[in-house]
Amino acid sequence: MAGVEIERLIQFLSRLPGLGPRSARRAALHLLKRREALMDPLARAMSEAAEAIKPCRICGNLDSQDPCAVCSDPKRDAGLVCVVAEVGDLWALERSGAFKGRYHVLGGILSALNLQSLVERARGGDVREAILALDATVDGQTTAHYIADKLAGLPVKVSRLAHGVPVGGELDYLDDGTIAAALNARRPAG
Amino acid sequence: MAGVEIERLIQFLSRLPGLGPRSARRAALHLLKRREALMDPLARAMSEAAEAIKPCRICGNLDSQDPCAVCSDPKRDAGLVCVVAEVGDLWALERSGAFKGRYHVLGGILSALNLQSLVERARGGDVREAILALDATVDGQTTAHYIADKLAGLPVKVSRLAHGVPVGGELDYLDDGTIAAALNARRPAG
Repeated sequence: MAGVEIERLIQFLSRLPGLGPRSARRAALHLLKRREALMDPLARAMSEAAEAIKPCRICGNLDSQDPCAVCSDPKRDAGLVCVVAEVGDLWALERSGAFKGRYHVLGGILSALNLQSLVERARGGDVREAILALDATVDGQTTAHYIADKLAGLPVKVSRLAHGVPVGGELDYLDDGTIAAALNARRPAG
Repeated sequence: MAGVEIERLIQFLSRLPGLGPRSARRAALHLLKRREALMDPLARAMSEAAEAIKPCRICGNLDSQDPCAVCSDPKRDAGLVCVVAEVGDLWALERSGAFKGRYHVLGGILSALNLQSLVERARGGDVREAILALDATVDGQTTAHYIADKLAGLPVKVSRLAHGVPVGGELDYLDDGTIAAALNARRPAG
């Protein structure tokens, strides 16, 4: 109805997570009305990111430097490796500011390659502890068991994130499994 | 944390309607993992749209041809002009397939310029009827009154969309104003 270029733009926008066909149309119009302020810079930002960003050869993080900023930072503990499924999980942990070790990104579907490179890092002798920071879902926990198996026998402590009540969470709204896990993992108060 | 290029990409993505900071991060990762399949073609689609798409000099629609496909279509009734606030509203009417006339896009904030060009189209003598298809909000209705005033005295019938129960709508969930409007505008059954 309004030119094949708009249709194509809407079609690609609708393939972004979080944008359905309706919001993709709205986003396309928003872009077309803000060419200099948004559409041109966004197109440029995409080209520049496509050019500059590469996966880190050590951990699989995405960065413009390789090894990535985390792997290159001598202040971060190379003996503590947090194993995550996706780069998005790595970003979430970085935002928390709570982790000062390094990472290993499995990359979505558990690939033999990425798991092998984790085993090799563990075999290398520098890694004291692997923290399995995987989703508390059936898939995540299956992956965690599988990785723990593969690391068994190596001189590496394997741990996982604690289950419990989310900070700010209301008991009334929590599922039974979480409440049970929080009870079992209860800590001395005060 | 992951290169200035990623940060910039997230920042521009988060300015799209429907994407907050969290979903913009997710969209950026999604793009970075699908460079050939999505990021490159989307960047190209944006550049091509920015290049090709212009506002129609007659009605304000966005299209790669000027006058736009609607204004250039001899099968569409030039005597029936549907006045809409935004190009998105024009798209919604086109999707309905129910309108075979032409359009006039006011373009967001009611600009003196766009209103003047509507008055001139009406003065030109080809327009029999102007259908004010504006939001059923205070703003939309204020705009409708204002336009009706400007068109008064010209040989143009001015109408507006009917109010009523949306198709598929449940009475129980409708606001009182809509129910009252639907009652007042009731039609013979059967």
